[in-house]
Amino acid sequence: MEKEDSMKGEESIGNGSRGGNRSRGRQGKRKKPPKKSRGSPAGLEKLLNPHTVAVIGASNREDRIGGIILKELTRSHCLLYPVNPKYQALRGMRCYPSVLDIPGRIDLAVITIPASGVPSVLEECGRKRIPYAIVVAGGFGETGEEGKRLQDQLVEIRKRYGIRILGPNTLGVFFPHESFDTIFVEHGDKSLAGGGGTAVISQSGSVGIEALGLASNIGFGLRTFVGLGNKCDLDELDFLRYFAEEPGTQLIAFYLENINEGREFLETCSAVSRNKPIVGLKAGRTASGASAVSSHTGRLSGMDLVVEGAFRQYGILRVQDDEELTDACRALEKCPLPSGNRIAVLSPAGGYGVICADFIEMPHPRTPLAMARLLPETEHRLRYVTLPFASCHNPVDITASASGQMYGQAMEAILQDPGVDILIGLVFWSPPGIEDDLLDIIAQQVRQTEKPVLVFTTYGPFTDRYLLEFWKRGVVGYSSIERTVRAARFLVERRMQLERFARES
Amino acid sequence: MEKEDSMKGEESIGNGSRGGNRSRGRQGKRKKPPKKSRGSPAGLEKLLNPHTVAVIGASNREDRIGGIILKELTRSHCLLYPVNPKYQALRGMRCYPSVLDIPGRIDLAVITIPASGVPSVLEECGRKRIPYAIVVAGGFGETGEEGKRLQDQLVEIRKRYGIRILGPNTLGVFFPHESFDTIFVEHGDKSLAGGGGTAVISQSGSVGIEALGLASNIGFGLRTFVGLGNKCDLDELDFLRYFAEEPGTQLIAFYLENINEGREFLETCSAVSRNKPIVGLKAGRTASGASAVSSHTGRLSGMDLVVEGAFRQYGILRVQDDEELTDACRALEKCPLPSGNRIAVLSPAGGYGVICADFIEMPHPRTPLAMARLLPETEHRLRYVTLPFASCHNPVDITASASGQMYGQAMEAILQDPGVDILIGLVFWSPPGIEDDLLDIIAQQVRQTEKPVLVFTTYGPFTDRYLLEFWKRGVVGYSSIERTVRAARFLVERRMQLERFARES
Repeated sequence: MEKEDSMKGEESIGNGSRGGNRSRGRQGKRKKPPKKSRGSPAGLEKLLNPHTVAVIGASNREDRIGGIILKELTRSHCLLYPVNPKYQALRGMRCYPSVLDIPGRIDLAVITIPASGVPSVLEECGRKRIPYAIVVAGGFGETGEEGKRLQDQLVEIRKRYGIRILGPNTLGVFFPHESFDTIFVEHGDKSLAGGGGTAVISQSGSVGIEALGLASNIGFGLRTFVGLGNKCDLDELDFLRYFAEEPGTQLIAFYLENINEGREFLETCSAVSRNKPIVGLKAGRTASGASAVSSHTGRLSGMDLVVEGAFRQYGILRVQDDEELTDACRALEKCPLPSGNRIAVLSPAGGYGVICADFIEMPHPRTPLAMARLLPETEHRLRYVTLPFASCHNPVDITASASGQMYGQAMEAILQDPGVDILIGLVFWSPPGIEDDLLDIIAQQVRQTEKPVLVFTTYGPFTDRYLLEFWKRGVVGYSSIERTVRAARFLVERRMQLERFARES
Repeated sequence: MEKEDSMKGEESIGNGSRGGNRSRGRQGKRKKPPKKSRGSPAGLEKLLNPHTVAVIGASNREDRIGGIILKELTRSHCLLYPVNPKYQALRGMRCYPSVLDIPGRIDLAVITIPASGVPSVLEECGRKRIPYAIVVAGGFGETGEEGKRLQDQLVEIRKRYGIRILGPNTLGVFFPHESFDTIFVEHGDKSLAGGGGTAVISQSGSVGIEALGLASNIGFGLRTFVGLGNKCDLDELDFLRYFAEEPGTQLIAFYLENINEGREFLETCSAVSRNKPIVGLKAGRTASGASAVSSHTGRLSGMDLVVEGAFRQYGILRVQDDEELTDACRALEKCPLPSGNRIAVLSPAGGYGVICADFIEMPHPRTPLAMARLLPETEHRLRYVTLPFASCHNPVDITASASGQMYGQAMEAILQDPGVDILIGLVFWSPPGIEDDLLDIIAQQVRQTEKPVLVFTTYGPFTDRYLLEFWKRGVVGYSSIERTVRAARFLVERRMQLERFARES
């Protein structure tokens, strides 16, 4: 009860301190949204880790959203209360005509009915003093004036009852550790079920979910996914604050199209990123509405510089697309940070070593990388553990005649060289001396070192399978040299960021 | 017989006209290689499409290279002659102690024995007047002085007998149309078996084969793969000339670390690219030997500008890595060229449309792209075929409520807009109204238009499967927005290149 009381208490004092709304949708400039207050960040636990959940619009049909979500949630640890006047029972559970008929307290209502019916059931949720509601349906503010009026009704109910709303027009949340999942589309959930330390906040449901689905092919450590949807109430700032405190979250990633309170969000990022890395993707919306092709480029380019500058200043690691977002998260979650930017490359295929060196030495304005110079002792040691015709300079080429054991010994020699900050291992499965035990050999070296190791591997149709096997063993891998080197760049950038924070404090 | 005679005839006049050797290996500066003459390009047919093949070092063991290659070649249309004094018969074929014992003419010898034994069997091939030999073994020039001496023996035999040598240290050739394949490592051959129009010339066996293996997951139209290896005789220029004339080759791609005759190669590219696009990846080798970290970057940057300039001038579409190489080839082989650089984006997921627009409008020095401005009639038509809340400006967002039919109708409307040069379709499989028939709906639109269409699709573990299904239907797709937009850039660059050629002529 204290949670609901505190939220109602805040309601009366919460107005007035919020910044401007930057949202500019395709339907023209939106009105400034009604002011709203924020619950305490800790309060989101009942949204993200609820004990009792009402599923409003639950169904026995698996082609209906209310049926899919009910089914998904039976895998969670929650006590479920299906709500639908059409049914007496669903999946063995008593089905209630309304949330008001449910005995006891409900932490979260998942509202799966179409938009037009949402205000009246949300009103009931408010009367039931349910603290959180996820509104799945689209057809609100994103669809024009009529939908906007419907969305305003939700905001008005939120004001009267203090109920906090996620959405509308959201896929909701996915919290693999508790098998709690309101997402009703294919999203690689089986591969994500292992969980991890990365919280993902996405304004677009599809961008978040499709990106995670693709990333899960090669392993992704998801702590929590939140789809913000139309952000009629809860927004990026609420979740940023929550994940900053949530002990299981090591890393925060966001995809945003607009930021409700730009300054406050950025300043919070700046504080949070001292403890947890923040990876950010901000998609521009202005281009689509601009009138002249030539002016597009100029404007976007300018906007881009502003975003670039702001992100750097406020401690956000900036990415350009969903693939880069997940690539950066994978490395930042699993790898220790390097002491510097000097990279050694180990390869049984000389050509790829050369390509990798090219990417490493490519000039880069933010995070220049360098090829490490190996000590003579290291090269001597490499000469000793590899074949006579191996190339023991960096990039080290132990040739296609290498064995797994040679690879491991070469890794160890390179990682012990004080002039090496990061090791990139190129891994191929076609050399006759390479067997699957190379996965474990590399994983063992990764466990033994305090330096970050990234691998590139490719093997036709088995590429993703090997990358996933690496991930399961704690090794971060990618299927292209460019992505591997880019991941190293994020580790270096994060190290530079922390050094800057230390200088500034 | 005329082939062999003509080759011998050329031998006496072939010297003197070759440029310098740019090769700089890791073992220090190599000596200028002995001068050699070139056979007529047409002659390579007996190498790339032989009728009678001797497999020297053939074996009945499938863990031996001579066993794997013999087995692979039984799938080809060639008449095979296994050669190994240890066996009377192999795989039901009579096995000969030496090529000299084989009755009749042999087009190609594939030499699978270790390096030390190669000169003597090559000598026998010469005496047998076999026109072409592939030398698989490594352990030659790439391994130091001793190997270099061994390699010089091959060159000397080549001089005496006129036999043309591919390699040594090469995976050889792969010609899917004839199931002719000397490559003994995993390389996605099943997916490549459909064949296509792209000839790939790779100095590094692994870079070529691993890249093709990965590309074959999502479809790749391979005409021929050639691994150059140490290039003791046949090199990039020989194959460039051959593929320029070979009618089945639509497109030529190369991965090179050094170019034997820089000027002649570039000038030939310049002539060839008027008819067939050439996609080139040149990896630098100098970085690894440089002494100071700071000087690396400067030098590479300078080198990079030289390569950039030379490639543009000589009509080569430049790529940075193997993934970009195969990505560019996939688009250039299958897509018509655009009339201009104006791109329309169609998506059922607004967020991805925005990310795509960002990549399109990103400033680019070589091939700036622009978001197309749709005609009012087009937007009106889009409004008519989609849902009321769809966004009918470019990027067009038909929302997750779209059906496959709507997608097809929207595509048609956009493709008929004269202000659109290229369509990028973002395709997702999670929207409830999207079924697998969208593959055919899109393929039909692609067949009906003369404009290039590229798709981006992602669907967790099924991503590659859908991309391959698209490819089989003649539609080129990628699993990241960035790669999709980059592919569009190559189509625009090729168009600009042809316009430049037209102006210059």
